Amino acid sequence: MQISQLLKQVEFIKEIDKIKYIQRKSKLFNSNRNENDAEHSWHLAMMVLVLAEHANSDIDVLKVLKMVLIHDIVEIDAGDVFIFDTNKNHSNTQEELKAANRIFGILPDNQAQEFIEIWLEFEEGNTNESKFAKAMDRFEPVLQNISNDGGTWVEHQVSHEKVLDKTKVMEEGSSVIWDYSKEQIDQLFNA
Amino acid sequence: MQISQLLKQVEFIKEIDKIKYIQRKSKLFNSNRNENDAEHSWHLAMMVLVLAEHANSDIDVLKVLKMVLIHDIVEIDAGDVFIFDTNKNHSNTQEELKAANRIFGILPDNQAQEFIEIWLEFEEGNTNESKFAKAMDRFEPVLQNISNDGGTWVEHQVSHEKVLDKTKVMEEGSSVIWDYSKEQIDQLFNA
Repeated sequence: MQISQLLKQVEFIKEIDKIKYIQRKSKLFNSNRNENDAEHSWHLAMMVLVLAEHANSDIDVLKVLKMVLIHDIVEIDAGDVFIFDTNKNHSNTQEELKAANRIFGILPDNQAQEFIEIWLEFEEGNTNESKFAKAMDRFEPVLQNISNDGGTWVEHQVSHEKVLDKTKVMEEGSSVIWDYSKEQIDQLFNA
Repeated sequence: MQISQLLKQVEFIKEIDKIKYIQRKSKLFNSNRNENDAEHSWHLAMMVLVLAEHANSDIDVLKVLKMVLIHDIVEIDAGDVFIFDTNKNHSNTQEELKAANRIFGILPDNQAQEFIEIWLEFEEGNTNESKFAKAMDRFEPVLQNISNDGGTWVEHQVSHEKVLDKTKVMEEGSSVIWDYSKEQIDQLFNA
């Protein structure tokens, strides 16, 4: 029994290696090198550990960690969508749900169920944990773009207004982090 | 007060971006591309989430996650040491301790203290949590090398005996995972 569980888990561990090949639009700090999904997910997990005290509400840190660690695994099948992409909607697509079912479905049933639920909770963004996880997911590229003199915002000619529009959701997770981010964004665009 | 905490935390978040440039000897699954420390740390965190049930003893999963997420940050200053390197010892060196003090020291005092303690607990390997974290740190390259027909073991001509010698410590964290690993390693070398 324990061995059949382990074999499924090992299969899953091998499968998710693929997110190391998924390039994001975002660049590393002070760099021109694109970040991949594994690096991004690690960085978000570190940000959760370090910044949890700034959450607007009490959060279950372990659950937020699970969210940020797994949130991009569906991109193995569904690909990365740039947040400022005007042709493709970033909301929870059928394609992503299918990907979640396939990939998390490699795991033993109880774990598959748990991971799909956590991923859906993240996507829906209605709980304190998912609001904070989403705030981290927005905050990392803000910090990266500011360290890169505007980075992907400049590269893709995204306006000041549009940047604020797409990042202000952070406020639902942490008003402290949003206030800081807005100040940094305003400074960059007004420079 | 909260802002001065946040500024230190942001400084730390930027600093640790550097582990994305630290190449390990290990290669990705079915691949010839080296893994970097951020990818490795993400993968270990996923393995902790998925494999915790196989730990020999009850473990605090959140603490193990913290360990694997931060365990390689000292390599920003101290560099990666190949586990089969015969010239350089992999044990907790002065150089690594200095690195831990500098890098975790960027954080507010209470967090710096916590991270240094967790890193030391991991390095010492005496608690249930650190034994399981270390088992994960050994298990990932075993899986990678097996998927790569021997991978770095073949490349660096590491003997069957030496591989078992360096990986058997896994047994302290999970005898189930060690039994599986030993079987896989034996099969590879006896093929």
